[in-house]
Amino acid sequence: MSEHFSYELIARDGPARAGVYHTPHGDIPTPIFAPVGTQATVKSITPAQLHEMGASLVLSNTYHLYLRPGAELVAEMGGLHKFMQWPNPMLTDSGGFQVFSLAGIRKIDADGATFKSHIDGSMHRLTPEKSIDIQQKLGADIIMVFDECAPPRDRAYNEQALERTTAWARRCLEAKTRADQALFGIVQGGIFDDLRKKSAEWTASQPFDGLAIGGLSVGESKEEMHAVLDTVVPLLPPEKPRYLMGVGSPEDLVNGIARGIDIFDCVLPTRLARHQSAMTLRGRVNMLNAIHSRDPRPIDDTCECYTCTNFSRAYIRHLISAREMLASTLISIHNISTLLRLVRLCREAIIEQRFEVFAHDFLSQYNHPKQK
Amino acid sequence: MSEHFSYELIARDGPARAGVYHTPHGDIPTPIFAPVGTQATVKSITPAQLHEMGASLVLSNTYHLYLRPGAELVAEMGGLHKFMQWPNPMLTDSGGFQVFSLAGIRKIDADGATFKSHIDGSMHRLTPEKSIDIQQKLGADIIMVFDECAPPRDRAYNEQALERTTAWARRCLEAKTRADQALFGIVQGGIFDDLRKKSAEWTASQPFDGLAIGGLSVGESKEEMHAVLDTVVPLLPPEKPRYLMGVGSPEDLVNGIARGIDIFDCVLPTRLARHQSAMTLRGRVNMLNAIHSRDPRPIDDTCECYTCTNFSRAYIRHLISAREMLASTLISIHNISTLLRLVRLCREAIIEQRFEVFAHDFLSQYNHPKQK
Repeated sequence: MSEHFSYELIARDGPARAGVYHTPHGDIPTPIFAPVGTQATVKSITPAQLHEMGASLVLSNTYHLYLRPGAELVAEMGGLHKFMQWPNPMLTDSGGFQVFSLAGIRKIDADGATFKSHIDGSMHRLTPEKSIDIQQKLGADIIMVFDECAPPRDRAYNEQALERTTAWARRCLEAKTRADQALFGIVQGGIFDDLRKKSAEWTASQPFDGLAIGGLSVGESKEEMHAVLDTVVPLLPPEKPRYLMGVGSPEDLVNGIARGIDIFDCVLPTRLARHQSAMTLRGRVNMLNAIHSRDPRPIDDTCECYTCTNFSRAYIRHLISAREMLASTLISIHNISTLLRLVRLCREAIIEQRFEVFAHDFLSQYNHPKQK
Repeated sequence: MSEHFSYELIARDGPARAGVYHTPHGDIPTPIFAPVGTQATVKSITPAQLHEMGASLVLSNTYHLYLRPGAELVAEMGGLHKFMQWPNPMLTDSGGFQVFSLAGIRKIDADGATFKSHIDGSMHRLTPEKSIDIQQKLGADIIMVFDECAPPRDRAYNEQALERTTAWARRCLEAKTRADQALFGIVQGGIFDDLRKKSAEWTASQPFDGLAIGGLSVGESKEEMHAVLDTVVPLLPPEKPRYLMGVGSPEDLVNGIARGIDIFDCVLPTRLARHQSAMTLRGRVNMLNAIHSRDPRPIDDTCECYTCTNFSRAYIRHLISAREMLASTLISIHNISTLLRLVRLCREAIIEQRFEVFAHDFLSQYNHPKQK
């Protein structure tokens, strides 16, 4: 464990908790949502805009950066923080998820994974040691163990993958040398209660700086996701931060926070923005809909983001119709701001000991808008 | 002429001049370069970013806005300033240039022009009255007469087009009713000295708020452009601003300012940005070039824009390689900042009575970089 990191618990309200994760690049108020900068950029927005909307933790992807521009190049340019000009906390994943889900051709063995680049078809190999090496070169504050994300309902696959994930996690702990990085372990096991329990107990017993739950939001039902969280979270040590990987819809954030999760990340807000979909605390709004064409109101009149304090739905719809890049930028700013606002509201509710009511009200209103 | 506008001359240095154009939405220091927001957005950047880089005047296109989203809609949303959230001075062109250059099918008669929309093939008609009506609905500070931009070397075409342009300019003067808008006349006549002289004298004699020179940077040589400016500018009344339409390369700005031009506009900085080309005061730089891949320096280490004070050439090249939208945004910010900086440098040199030396040094160094 690294002495440069500490999780400070501020308040509990049932399983939900509010805290601060202290990192070498600043404090992360938790619960927090981390926007994803897949290729060392949160798509269509500048770091100055990210900062203005109150983001603290930003995620980037080892698989993508390893292939392009390469970890050595990023290291040579002073590391990921400097390269992409995000001076605040950063997290990199291990590359595992992308190798198993994005790479077309891949071969997994006990030692690691061989895969074909989606960019140029060249062959590459990732092992636990290689993933840690890359992540150390990138230099994010939080780095992740190299794990295998199995199809959630395949029992045999999950048993085998969990064995590999556990063995690889050990090797990651041994390979890590940088003291200014926190290494998080990852709990796997698909939808299988006993596998999740086994994985959680083992991961909790190891000297990781934080604990992540992987293999969710990959095809299982909401009920299955909640059951996994209900099994896993109580087994995790309370003094370490808990990170639910790749999860970022508003309902999932609230349901995750209700079960004791501290950190979330997802490409959803920027991906939806590129598909003209605005996120609100009541549900999604398709901004290309003709209903908006003469609407002077902002996307969400309760939102204080740059987009909502300046631009009408009519203007945003015009930008979409005219295929202007600014549409993606403005909707991305709004969507990320919405998720950051949601986790702030959750945090305040936890601190004020009214999270259960907040979560109940939120979930009962979500996708049941009283007004358009 | 509108009493809401006035051109204040601050300094002259030979034909070059520095001034302030006072408008209802603020002062424009001249000489000035106006970035172009074709469809009510300067491509890939927000108004906040435009403001931060020191832009004062922004141009938008009547042809595009008339077709989409429509002038009535913009008026209903409170006018163009409010619609696109640019609270500072704005200018709209008349739609003439786009009709004659962009529209595939078009038919010009004495009364106006009929054309086919490039968006959906629908047929439309612009007349001087219609153009003024649209521009009054859009509500920019500076609006333009509906003119015909002829191929620069076709004598017969230019003679006929000039007659129409003159007749149409009269009708625009009559059609205009809003006192809070300035109407600029446009001098046409191709590369023909006598036609340009005739057009300049007539336009100068009319109660326009400012005078523009059209039909340049459309295929003629640099020498021909300069000859036209040398003929036209001395015939224009010194108490009114002079606008060279559609011109925006660094050399053209300096050569235009040297001949007494106050206002320029061009899509060049944003268009070049989308083609990975960065503008500097020494020439253009292709940012996709592999030479930049490990270069920690900014695009231009003498530039103080957001892009150059934050990001390396290596990062920008990575964004281009990875087809990230942020590449266009960052290069656009730099390119527009570069032209705004160039006109600021010209203005300072004029005020300090050293413009001739400045222009000579600039032009002799441009495209002859001493360093990469």
